[in-house]
Amino acid sequence: MCETSDFELHSNLASDGIVLGAFPLCQVLLIDDANYPWFVLVPQRPGIVELSDLSETDYQQLWQESRVFCGFLRSALRPDKLNVATLGNITPQLHVHHIARFETDAAWPKPIWGVEEAKPYTDQALSELTGLLASTQLENFTPSN
Amino acid sequence: MCETSDFELHSNLASDGIVLGAFPLCQVLLIDDANYPWFVLVPQRPGIVELSDLSETDYQQLWQESRVFCGFLRSALRPDKLNVATLGNITPQLHVHHIARFETDAAWPKPIWGVEEAKPYTDQALSELTGLLASTQLENFTPSN
Repeated sequence: MCETSDFELHSNLASDGIVLGAFPLCQVLLIDDANYPWFVLVPQRPGIVELSDLSETDYQQLWQESRVFCGFLRSALRPDKLNVATLGNITPQLHVHHIARFETDAAWPKPIWGVEEAKPYTDQALSELTGLLASTQLENFTPSN
Repeated sequence: MCETSDFELHSNLASDGIVLGAFPLCQVLLIDDANYPWFVLVPQRPGIVELSDLSETDYQQLWQESRVFCGFLRSALRPDKLNVATLGNITPQLHVHHIARFETDAAWPKPIWGVEEAKPYTDQALSELTGLLASTQLENFTPSN
């Protein structure tokens, strides 16, 4: 069972991201930066900072959801590389970045953080990206309305 | 069973890192940069680039070994934050960074990549760090000789 009732999304994530939906454990956000298809999985558990703060069950669930989400990114976007990372030096609430990287993107081959100023999505680009996700029957994923 | 016979460490990792030992799946390297306690787990499987290239069993094993290793880093080094990341934009062989971050370190709060030039360990500092690992009975970890 997932007890998500005490969970509240950190204000930094809430302001940078757009909630696309949720797996049983993790909310899935899109970071509003059209430079890269950049998503964040956030386990809906209060007070979690490090991966190893998660229970063994939640930890396995997080990586299972990440595996499903990486599968979606690979098949839908055909990136040259996926970057999967949990840093949290500024925003302590545990969140796992999932970024589809392309050899043509603005930061390649560097990590993306701090390289380019965020470029908000146009309505059309956002709708195309969310449409891709909505049209994919991702295992145990519930899209936002 | 772990079939590691066809595995060969990528030359970039071999030249940047010092092999400290291995879990059943992953080699554990220390990156020779005394700016940060910076370790890399490399699944000993040939031809693996993305996390989701791993079999389901290996994938679970990788994250189990990562969990044990994070536990070691937290208890032995008491970092302010752990950074766990797989990027691979330059070195495609799957490798997962595990970095113990401190608010006093050279890159804080930024990610470490590309910030500081690598500062090789002194023999003494290296021996202290490897001694910490050797003196910890890490589950299923075999230190190098």
